[in-house]
Amino acid sequence: MSNYFIKDKLNNICAKVLKMSKNLTKRSEDYSKWYNELVVKADLAENSGVRGCMVIKPYGYAIWEKMQGELDRMFKETGHQNAYFPLFVPKSMFEAEEKNAEGFAKECAIVTHYRLKNDPDNKGKLMVDPNAKLEEELIVRPTSEAIIWSTYKGWVQSYRDLPLLINQWANVVRWEMRTRLFLRTAEFLWQEGHTAHATKAEALEESVKMMNVYADFAQNFMAIPVVKGVKTETERFAGADETYCIEALMQDGKALQAGTSHFLGQNFAKAFDVKFANKEGKQEHVWGTSWGVSTRLMGALVMTHSDDNGLVLPPNLAPIQVVIVPIHRTDEQLEAISTQVNELMKDLRKVGVSVKFDDRDTQKPGFKFAEWELKGVPVRLAIGPNDLENGTYEVARRDTLTKETVSKEGIVTYIQSLLEQIQSDLFNKALSYRDTHITEVNSFEEFKDVLENKGGFVAAHWDGSAETEEKIKELTKATIRCIALDRKEEAGSCVLTGKPSAGRVLFAKAY
Amino acid sequence: MSNYFIKDKLNNICAKVLKMSKNLTKRSEDYSKWYNELVVKADLAENSGVRGCMVIKPYGYAIWEKMQGELDRMFKETGHQNAYFPLFVPKSMFEAEEKNAEGFAKECAIVTHYRLKNDPDNKGKLMVDPNAKLEEELIVRPTSEAIIWSTYKGWVQSYRDLPLLINQWANVVRWEMRTRLFLRTAEFLWQEGHTAHATKAEALEESVKMMNVYADFAQNFMAIPVVKGVKTETERFAGADETYCIEALMQDGKALQAGTSHFLGQNFAKAFDVKFANKEGKQEHVWGTSWGVSTRLMGALVMTHSDDNGLVLPPNLAPIQVVIVPIHRTDEQLEAISTQVNELMKDLRKVGVSVKFDDRDTQKPGFKFAEWELKGVPVRLAIGPNDLENGTYEVARRDTLTKETVSKEGIVTYIQSLLEQIQSDLFNKALSYRDTHITEVNSFEEFKDVLENKGGFVAAHWDGSAETEEKIKELTKATIRCIALDRKEEAGSCVLTGKPSAGRVLFAKAY
Repeated sequence: MSNYFIKDKLNNICAKVLKMSKNLTKRSEDYSKWYNELVVKADLAENSGVRGCMVIKPYGYAIWEKMQGELDRMFKETGHQNAYFPLFVPKSMFEAEEKNAEGFAKECAIVTHYRLKNDPDNKGKLMVDPNAKLEEELIVRPTSEAIIWSTYKGWVQSYRDLPLLINQWANVVRWEMRTRLFLRTAEFLWQEGHTAHATKAEALEESVKMMNVYADFAQNFMAIPVVKGVKTETERFAGADETYCIEALMQDGKALQAGTSHFLGQNFAKAFDVKFANKEGKQEHVWGTSWGVSTRLMGALVMTHSDDNGLVLPPNLAPIQVVIVPIHRTDEQLEAISTQVNELMKDLRKVGVSVKFDDRDTQKPGFKFAEWELKGVPVRLAIGPNDLENGTYEVARRDTLTKETVSKEGIVTYIQSLLEQIQSDLFNKALSYRDTHITEVNSFEEFKDVLENKGGFVAAHWDGSAETEEKIKELTKATIRCIALDRKEEAGSCVLTGKPSAGRVLFAKAY
Repeated sequence: MSNYFIKDKLNNICAKVLKMSKNLTKRSEDYSKWYNELVVKADLAENSGVRGCMVIKPYGYAIWEKMQGELDRMFKETGHQNAYFPLFVPKSMFEAEEKNAEGFAKECAIVTHYRLKNDPDNKGKLMVDPNAKLEEELIVRPTSEAIIWSTYKGWVQSYRDLPLLINQWANVVRWEMRTRLFLRTAEFLWQEGHTAHATKAEALEESVKMMNVYADFAQNFMAIPVVKGVKTETERFAGADETYCIEALMQDGKALQAGTSHFLGQNFAKAFDVKFANKEGKQEHVWGTSWGVSTRLMGALVMTHSDDNGLVLPPNLAPIQVVIVPIHRTDEQLEAISTQVNELMKDLRKVGVSVKFDDRDTQKPGFKFAEWELKGVPVRLAIGPNDLENGTYEVARRDTLTKETVSKEGIVTYIQSLLEQIQSDLFNKALSYRDTHITEVNSFEEFKDVLENKGGFVAAHWDGSAETEEKIKELTKATIRCIALDRKEEAGSCVLTGKPSAGRVLFAKAY
């Protein structure tokens, strides 16, 4: 690049980066504020005019679509099919479920009427027609076990009808009082798998399998290391006999439950009377599982990798993996650059790399650099007249903010391996953070100290009682995130009560 | 195939085909009943325990996913991005919209409360908590113009922010009193595009473009010929200045609106105060479009091609394009067949053909033949020991119910061209039916006669008034489906009033 370009470029970048970082609160100042600002500034999502509901903007939705695409492929490879069940659940179906699953969340959106009409007393205003009251109230699904198991009753007669391996991509609503974009919203998008099996062993195997699918997805696509474990009875899904989960750790030391897979035993089969004739012709209740991940994963993605300059996206989920910014003063220069870049884009797309040429004439390079940095595009190429002459590109990595000059010969291979490198570096960085934030403690003082001053998972002995769990939560706000599947057997004494414990469990403050 | 197999096979087939056709009402007997039965028996969908809401079963959903995949690709190729907007619309947003769009459908699901609680007077029962009443009622979206345009207000300041080319895949709810699977359900799935433009010309171009995308999709993927046209003012979407549509013709001579694309003018921009600064810095209202197709297309697909034996699916949308059924008596035979079939499946998948090997040992070949016939799989291969010896397959076409013996050499190419042939034959068959069912009439007697005894589109002169349109509807149940874009200019007299008309419009009874 020639000198006057470099100067112009640097000025631009400095100005814009400053502007951007001024605009974005630093993580060290206020992590929570940083997150809220970033989600909006990076065009992922925003609050809507409807309390607690968000608008997922095109850039955010494109990331969600990439997640959906990979998960859907993984579900299908493990034998599942998609289907669609109603948005509404009649109140009586919840009553059937409640018999077996007391304490189920009841903060939900309830449809009671079916007609809006003009308000005769207020011109231009509408009112709910009092004559259009539903005989039975409908609940907007907070989860679909009830409606799905009441449907499965009609689908299962014999062992030949099993297993049912079904997934649904859907919106669900839970009337949350305090909401945060992606992390907790009244309406959110998710997938919910609901399977039915002839034996307990098969259903258990399914729930473990899907936890492993989630863990693979988190690690290989989101570049997020997770702990696999089971929930305590207190933290378990009300209708489940066992809840498997994957737990991730955010940069502020708080844990985030990234996915759950429930072994439902025969609870829903009994609540909804779903039986099958086994090979001997005897009637048995079906065994079930359900498992889900949601747009909450978007929050986990943002909070695991991003920095004070904006988003950092792992290449495997970035809607745009490479952005190319031309640096030019004349139209001829732009034309020469475009010709070369168009060839490069063709070659990159051929090998499956998604690339964007940002040739907007309404913005300067510095603005573009800052914008794509904010939006977390993993690799940025810049090319000016000098690069054109020398046969080079300036290649910048978003994660490390480092740059180098690379020859255009072999650049496609270079970019492919760079993307792989970034993907694995992001994972390793997060893994190293996570691993240094699992701290074994042996006293309650130490427990509180680590929780307050270091954060992360606190591995502590616990006496196994719900009372102790509750007491610790009251005193520290930490909950048992999970009992890790790979925990070592180790006799010890509960940090709070001193009672015997068979091994450590992972506590943390959590989203 | 050896003789004893043929006999066994034929017996099986005859028995099962008879059973199936007995089970499925004939179209000529009761078209409507045939449709309802077919949708359920072919495992496409069923009614749920929630009034007016359907369950889309895995096989039906797999077809919908193929539709979604193609449409989504077409939307993206024409520059659109996906996003997601809230399920709920506050009542006041509808009031804003109503100012400009009177007569908007008001039969909708209304959320008034947000908590279910245990009923203190009825153990095991739940009740709506009267203390958890919403300050403002929320409407479950019947369509999203209101919520989206209220969001666009925050997204558009300058001409640089335009156009907004956004699509959403979502569920919507309209409180229909009489429902039919896919054709009219309280909840349905659809996509809704909502675009915003700086100029009228650009918005008009967009609405026409998307009508053309729909027409291409209907013709090339669904194999359904459509008439492109505009709606009369009576039939137009209440908030639109012009509604473009594609109209298809079902086998019973009734029309089905398969997709609409609305030119919204500045109506929603005015209702929600969405303005932009043009290049001269002057504030102007934005121009809009919206366009959608829904799971209703599933109904159109079924009713266009299927026959008294079951579904007939066009290869381009069939989840399974080829099914292979082994005919065997011994395990050795099955093993030899499987070895060869596995090779063939690999080769077929390599060229993008989706194939299933139905080696269930719980069902006989005849049962399988009837089942895949019912489910509309375009091509069925059967292979028995004699085929193995002779190096052949028995290839059956679902659409024509014809069979031939084909050498295994070159069978992949054979199947590829057969699938293309079936796709184009289905379209041509439907086109020929449609073309012979557009009848020009020049008197009201003729109008009624054609409508009653032949069905299809009746091309008639109309005086252009809403009164005449309404009167004809009262007298015949026929509505104006559209004013075809390619209609010829032809002076004439209205079939009902004799008043002058500038050209024929298409009337029909419609779904």
